[in-house]
Amino acid sequence: MRAITIPEPGGPEALVWADVPDPEPAEGEVLIEVVASAVNRADLLQRQGFYDPPPGSSPYPGLECSGRIAALGPGVHGWAVGDEVCALLAGGGYAEKVAVPAGQVLPLPTGLDLVSAAALPEVACTVWSNVFMIAHLRPGETLLVHGGSSGIGTMAIQLAKAVGARVAVTAGGPEKLARCAELGADVLIDYREQDFVQEIRKATDGKGADVILDIIGAKYLQRNVKTLGVSGRLAIIGLQGGVKAELNLAALLNKRAAITATSLRARPLNEKAAIVAAVREHVWPLIGNGQVRPIVDRTLPMADAAEAHRVVDASVHVGKVVLTV
Amino acid sequence: MRAITIPEPGGPEALVWADVPDPEPAEGEVLIEVVASAVNRADLLQRQGFYDPPPGSSPYPGLECSGRIAALGPGVHGWAVGDEVCALLAGGGYAEKVAVPAGQVLPLPTGLDLVSAAALPEVACTVWSNVFMIAHLRPGETLLVHGGSSGIGTMAIQLAKAVGARVAVTAGGPEKLARCAELGADVLIDYREQDFVQEIRKATDGKGADVILDIIGAKYLQRNVKTLGVSGRLAIIGLQGGVKAELNLAALLNKRAAITATSLRARPLNEKAAIVAAVREHVWPLIGNGQVRPIVDRTLPMADAAEAHRVVDASVHVGKVVLTV
Repeated sequence: MRAITIPEPGGPEALVWADVPDPEPAEGEVLIEVVASAVNRADLLQRQGFYDPPPGSSPYPGLECSGRIAALGPGVHGWAVGDEVCALLAGGGYAEKVAVPAGQVLPLPTGLDLVSAAALPEVACTVWSNVFMIAHLRPGETLLVHGGSSGIGTMAIQLAKAVGARVAVTAGGPEKLARCAELGADVLIDYREQDFVQEIRKATDGKGADVILDIIGAKYLQRNVKTLGVSGRLAIIGLQGGVKAELNLAALLNKRAAITATSLRARPLNEKAAIVAAVREHVWPLIGNGQVRPIVDRTLPMADAAEAHRVVDASVHVGKVVLTV
Repeated sequence: MRAITIPEPGGPEALVWADVPDPEPAEGEVLIEVVASAVNRADLLQRQGFYDPPPGSSPYPGLECSGRIAALGPGVHGWAVGDEVCALLAGGGYAEKVAVPAGQVLPLPTGLDLVSAAALPEVACTVWSNVFMIAHLRPGETLLVHGGSSGIGTMAIQLAKAVGARVAVTAGGPEKLARCAELGADVLIDYREQDFVQEIRKATDGKGADVILDIIGAKYLQRNVKTLGVSGRLAIIGLQGGVKAELNLAALLNKRAAITATSLRARPLNEKAAIVAAVREHVWPLIGNGQVRPIVDRTLPMADAAEAHRVVDASVHVGKVVLTV
């Protein structure tokens, strides 16, 4: 088969569409013939040599895909060859075939096409596990989403609105904020012009945010803690703004607040399977009835993965950039 | 009635046993004729002028008491005058009478005397809410308790052992550690001589602690994060070692770890009532059957509250220092 390989870490040109051996489904795995994959920021780090795949997983980038089941490994039940599916991967989505544990495979949501479905697994699993399973966002609470127009952000806005929460977003510039508003965001904050601490304070009558979904890390840590309300939960899923920052524990204690930091890729199989099962139970019906939809910025052929990475690197997109085989 | 008053913040001598007006039970409150109270570190801070009581609560120190119900405010059900009880207070335990919301009142555990029961409400509620309701310590997991010989520590050791967890403690010197061992602690770390990061690593085959109950704050933050294992939870309930420290978010993210910081006193009534109800359901039976017991270092008359504060200030005690009326 062919896959996007990284002979030498580097810029987008480091991605090379090349012939490689076919993967084999191991026990408990299915082999998927890939129709589409999608770009995640982690892929950009992997391309640069900063984010090696976990031991035992595919060396090729790609944390999600859609396609058709081509073969079943021993001990797989509930799936059949030919099933149209999408899947959460530890790697290898940028390829014609990928083997994946059956617990990370999802059926297509009702009414969705295969290409769009490739945009779902990572954002649905990341948002559901962090905002709902870890931070327990409840109806009526306020969620602040940093990077509201990203793939993660566009899913977080829709899911939080679907459960009856209020959503504030930060994004860079009025066009991205307008897209967030279309998806239901209630409070729009242009981080280039506005201070999110003040804006959230104003928007919540001084109460602060109940949950913050953060991709920035160190650069925002102090302001995020300031922005949290009583019993607030800060869920960090990315460190685009650095890793080390001063934390004021008295501020945290006075608010009885919590900080969590997670990544999805390194989780053990049983935790991933539990998240995928929860997404199937809670998120898939919302997609099936049209309340939540995948937001695809553009679709490019897999061989143009370098161009897709340039788009995501430049942050000119809204939602996901999809790659088709 | 008489109560310990603080005419001017200061050292232990600032505590003055004086005549004050009787409290009245408001709607939903009971009036308790106090038999005993107990010292908490927060009382020392309040005495020094650093920890004012929350608005609307008693100006006198004392976050817990035992005694007999002397009167019921309007709308109180389930309690009767003369009932022997103990209670979690927002203040006012160092007094002959105190009014408290009925949701914070507990019956005496089976077989326990009134004086010993005064040592229970704060430590039982703090440990249960943090270690179990927030950090979800599970059987087989490893809990690290800083200050294992403190009131909080002695309760945390016993409760964690009772649910089948493994317990490591830090304390200052072999005598305090021996007391922790008697209560069931499995791993004993003398913080004066040993590095708890290394000791926990050794004791867990490199896996780290699943839950840390911390009273130190800033001074231990980095070492606590290093000590956490994958999916570890750091529950901070005191800041004896300062409030500001550098946090490495990458370390947190790689472990998918959580940091929470809480205090009990400032929580709203409904949250306190939920904690007290959980303690009655889960902790009281363990005390009733003898698996868990209050650890009382010494009992002093209320008029000697200054001496009790000197003992706690000097950290020469193990467990709780109780004050009797």
